[in-house]
Amino acid sequence: MPETRPRKARQPMPQDRDGAFAWIDAQRERRDRAGLVRRLSPRPADSPLLDLASNDYLGLARHPEASAAAAAAAHRWGAGSTGSRLVTGSTELHTTLERELAEFCGFEAALVFSSGYAANLAAVSALGGRDALVVSDADNHASLIDGCRLSRAEIAVVPHADPDAVGKALDADEADAGATKEGEARRRALVVSDAVFSVDGDAAPLAALAAVARRYGAALVVDEAHGLGVLGEGGRGAVHGAGLAGAPDVVVTATLSKSLGSQGGAVLGPARVIEHLVNSARTFIFDTGLNPAAVGAALAGLRLLRREPERAARVRTVAMGLYGRLTAAGLAAVRPDASVVSVRAPSPEKAVRWAADCRAAGLMVGCFRPPSVPDGVSRLRLTARGDLTEDQIEEAADVIVRTAPAA
Amino acid sequence: MPETRPRKARQPMPQDRDGAFAWIDAQRERRDRAGLVRRLSPRPADSPLLDLASNDYLGLARHPEASAAAAAAAHRWGAGSTGSRLVTGSTELHTTLERELAEFCGFEAALVFSSGYAANLAAVSALGGRDALVVSDADNHASLIDGCRLSRAEIAVVPHADPDAVGKALDADEADAGATKEGEARRRALVVSDAVFSVDGDAAPLAALAAVARRYGAALVVDEAHGLGVLGEGGRGAVHGAGLAGAPDVVVTATLSKSLGSQGGAVLGPARVIEHLVNSARTFIFDTGLNPAAVGAALAGLRLLRREPERAARVRTVAMGLYGRLTAAGLAAVRPDASVVSVRAPSPEKAVRWAADCRAAGLMVGCFRPPSVPDGVSRLRLTARGDLTEDQIEEAADVIVRTAPAA
Ligand SMILES: Cc1ncc(COP(=O)(O)O)c(C=O)c1O
Ligand SMILES: Cc1ncc(COP(=O)(O)O)c(C=O)c1O
Repeated sequence: MPETRPRKARQPMPQDRDGAFAWIDAQRERRDRAGLVRRLSPRPADSPLLDLASNDYLGLARHPEASAAAAAAAHRWGAGSTGSRLVTGSTELHTTLERELAEFCGFEAALVFSSGYAANLAAVSALGGRDALVVSDADNHASLIDGCRLSRAEIAVVPHADPDAVGKALDADEADAGATKEGEARRRALVVSDAVFSVDGDAAPLAALAAVARRYGAALVVDEAHGLGVLGEGGRGAVHGAGLAGAPDVVVTATLSKSLGSQGGAVLGPARVIEHLVNSARTFIFDTGLNPAAVGAALAGLRLLRREPERAARVRTVAMGLYGRLTAAGLAAVRPDASVVSVRAPSPEKAVRWAADCRAAGLMVGCFRPPSVPDGVSRLRLTARGDLTEDQIEEAADVIVRTAPAA
Repeated sequence: MPETRPRKARQPMPQDRDGAFAWIDAQRERRDRAGLVRRLSPRPADSPLLDLASNDYLGLARHPEASAAAAAAAHRWGAGSTGSRLVTGSTELHTTLERELAEFCGFEAALVFSSGYAANLAAVSALGGRDALVVSDADNHASLIDGCRLSRAEIAVVPHADPDAVGKALDADEADAGATKEGEARRRALVVSDAVFSVDGDAAPLAALAAVARRYGAALVVDEAHGLGVLGEGGRGAVHGAGLAGAPDVVVTATLSKSLGSQGGAVLGPARVIEHLVNSARTFIFDTGLNPAAVGAALAGLRLLRREPERAARVRTVAMGLYGRLTAAGLAAVRPDASVVSVRAPSPEKAVRWAADCRAAGLMVGCFRPPSVPDGVSRLRLTARGDLTEDQIEEAADVIVRTAPAA
């Protein structure tokens, strides 16, 4: 038992009200010195810049059908959903989107969230839990990492894209727990990975991950944020492409904010998993349902993709075309598995300068610096939109090469 | 040093793929037996039910100006914001909303998030941190609690609405840390509270909380989810009402999904706090910006509220009218400080039955049961919308009284 220490009665000093946040200034100075201060640069409605920075992979966010669907939904269903999905926030429009999304991706059921971030928090925390082991790729997205933290599970972070390391983590856990007798419950386990990693655009080794997870009776949770609309047959995602869609031990999370051009997130999986989330996921129960305009736009985007499946293949062609031009010019780009082309920069400062020079030349590119990159390496992040023309791809590559800093 | 145990090489048994989620069935059965299973009941666009369940306190979600603004924004700015606020997801429309919201509530700056949940995660986790103490009201909303968990700070959960307990937690911390010498940095501390608690609708003792926080140099973070649009002059919120708006040691979080009738969240505070969030809040940096339709609708809602400030007072009148009728009929209701009227039910089963009976009589009410209630007491949760007529209030009260279960 801890000893109780006698405490002398204290009269706290009157405080400087300004002092409560004084610590922020010191952090700001550190960031400033390191060249890592971020500022918002809001865009006008009709930006003249060529966009290679957004996640609007299929160009659907600006597609007239998507905007029209958003507008129609706002008029018919209201501007907001008015409550938690469990109270007044579920409309029949939400249900339609859930049904069509599940069907498209090949899963039994789907559940829509207010964001992809919220969907990831829900999936990992509600399927994890104090008595679980979660094995998580070192390069997983922030929302999966936060899901791990909220799950209270034991977390094993394993090296990037390394199924053997996943197997070792699961094996070590079994050994720790002692040999389980037949019929005895072993600790439940979850393997969690991005389908396509957001920084470098490389795809996860899904078939191998599923195999190793199955060997240990673990479930597999895959974040299709950058896979949906780009990979798999007609953009059904990397999980579908790997033949894992609809498997009883596989759960997919997705966002409606990238290929589908809207906002929101979803979890797809066996019906019992979805029912479990309805009953236990905090970011479902305690969050207002997605606003009708976003639901309507995502549904329109999904239907467009189903009608024009060639959009998915086109994104990959654009990405490879861009990659080919950049590497031919000697730049250090990562071979893209999906729509993201990552190009290394020599330093954070040079990356910022490079992106600014592109911008001055009419091209908007992403610029990832610490702490948004897992390995501390700054890079330009280019997104190959499927609706770019050959001329635009050539122009973009020209600008990037022309403005490239010396190493 | 821990001893390394020799591990025998193991050949894992081939697994039943169905087994990965078998644990869910056991949890489901437990929930079933306890009468706590939740099911979604999606609503049609033109529900004939009288709504006393949504958080659309001012009736703005269905206001034609809000829907029209959502539609116009989707057409002008696109269906989605297309990226993180730091990349392509900030439009000038976001900036306008941030400026007008900050001005309305009396703060230096504001930052818009994709949800109120995300705003709370951001505020608490980015202002907390490993070297901080966060003092949190026992009845705080799930999103504040999750923010505490993500912050990695030491968390002191204090009894509900108890400024003395907050003082004791801060004092104990100072004593633990030893007397701080003048000019020496003490551990930073944060006091976190809902402005109006979502389950019982009672208001926090904000003036007393601010005083005790100041005595110890701690910052105060207040969630105005149910205060904005309802409390304070013209609905400027409880913090404004308590004379704390714009204080250098006070931060407010808000949601755009309740009184403002849309979706999204915001953090309001000193400019240096907002800049800190832009640079460090994970749910800001790694989340797609709020969709333009939701931004447009929230802005329209805000402007409506500014133009028609009597909407805020009307909500409070409706709530008191409802409360008066229910208590006069002998029901155990909590005196509402804002728009939520909470009525106790004898058991979860009876609460569910009561809500279903109301529904059969044409009235939609909220029904809160464990685990969504902090004290395990089930209740009906009624929201007094400002656009209810006297007839509707009377009808609602009649139905609730008529269907009330015997204790
Ligand atoms: C891999 C990944 N998962 C999840 C998310 C979060 O999705 P959303 O922005 O829709 O919240 C993102 C990006 O935003 C992402 O890149
Ligand atoms: C007190 C409180 N804070 C935060 C939230 C989350 O806000 P949002 O639903 O906009 O994500 C809610 C309700 O949903 C709430 O009741």
